[in-house]
Amino acid sequence: MPVVQIEMIEGRTEEQKRQLVKNVTNAVVESVDCKPEAVKIIIREMKKEHYAEGGVLYKDKK
Amino acid sequence: MPVVQIEMIEGRTEEQKRQLVKNVTNAVVESVDCKPEAVKIIIREMKKEHYAEGGVLYKDKK
Amino acid sequence: MPVVQIEMIEGRTEEQKRQLVKNVTNAVVESVDCKPEAVKIIIREMKKEHYAEGGVLYKDKK
Amino acid sequence: MPVVQIEMIEGRTEEQKRQLVKNVTNAVVESVDCKPEAVKIIIREMKKEHYAEGGVLYKDKK
Amino acid sequence: MPVVQIEMIEGRTEEQKRQLVKNVTNAVVESVDCKPEAVKIIIREMKKEHYAEGGVLYKDKK
Amino acid sequence: MPVVQIEMIEGRTEEQKRQLVKNVTNAVVESVDCKPEAVKIIIREMKKEHYAEGGVLYKDKK
Repeated sequence: MPVVQIEMIEGRTEEQKRQLVKNVTNAVVESVDCKPEAVKIIIREMKKEHYAEGGVLYKDKK
Repeated sequence: MPVVQIEMIEGRTEEQKRQLVKNVTNAVVESVDCKPEAVKIIIREMKKEHYAEGGVLYKDKK
Repeated sequence: MPVVQIEMIEGRTEEQKRQLVKNVTNAVVESVDCKPEAVKIIIREMKKEHYAEGGVLYKDKK
Repeated sequence: MPVVQIEMIEGRTEEQKRQLVKNVTNAVVESVDCKPEAVKIIIREMKKEHYAEGGVLYKDKK
Repeated sequence: MPVVQIEMIEGRTEEQKRQLVKNVTNAVVESVDCKPEAVKIIIREMKKEHYAEGGVLYKDKK
Repeated sequence: MPVVQIEMIEGRTEEQKRQLVKNVTNAVVESVDCKPEAVKIIIREMKKEHYAEGGVLYKDKK
């Protein structure tokens, strides 16, 4: 029943997301001792103007 | 002040969402004894490649 | 696969939470046409000093 | 390390979001005594049919 | 209707939280043009072993 | 900047959480090509009466 929510900047390929959910599920299973089927993952993509650190939009960085 | 966040695969009609917020609000009100106006609901839709169980994307199931 | 997160002020009994997940699950199932087993619900309780509307803590209201 | 998630109806300009993350970061820093770089902000936009109060979609209000 | 969720390490005083919701609400109101009453804030506190950056628990830092 | 939120039933040891954030961070880094320092993880623990599938509290299962 671990529920994992992952928020990241948009632009990853479908294949990267496929790897992401496989690898994160394995990481959870081996760390906290649960069954793979129990792990649910939600991915959310953010535009570069929807994330900020230090008060500055990711879009404006560098 | 219950705040409800609902995440589901995209594709439901506006009418289904209208029923969803009405019915979920009623369910909350009758279960935990609060006023309807106090219930806030956020709906988020996911693409089929943005949800996984058991390490497999919903898009790849079956 | 609907994932529902419910945030509410602490203090409800276990029986109220039991009713809450049963009733909200039914509300989701009948509204968006999915199987009951697909509905996951996370409940989170807040202290009265951890929720605010209009810039005022729930604890300080009235 | 404060992580802030802001959910609002879509339609704000990029400049409004720029101000939002700057002003919210400042508000957090001066309130809870942390470094600006520690503050992470995620913005999520909702369609008017994805938010409800009192069981009524924002889209259907008034 | 902006809904704000703030996650931070536990240990702030109630007065700091009071200032936090007041100041963040003001920051949101002046940035995105909404009424103060529309702003809802949820605070969640984390133990030092419940937050990590770079794969290291906050508790283990330095 | 991936921000990961993990919700699981309470009862894991601190060492399990230490492994969890290390392993999940590695899984994210190798899957979506980002720096380890960019990965933030929030862990939230749930009581057995705060999670449900199919309308039944985890506490009431079997």
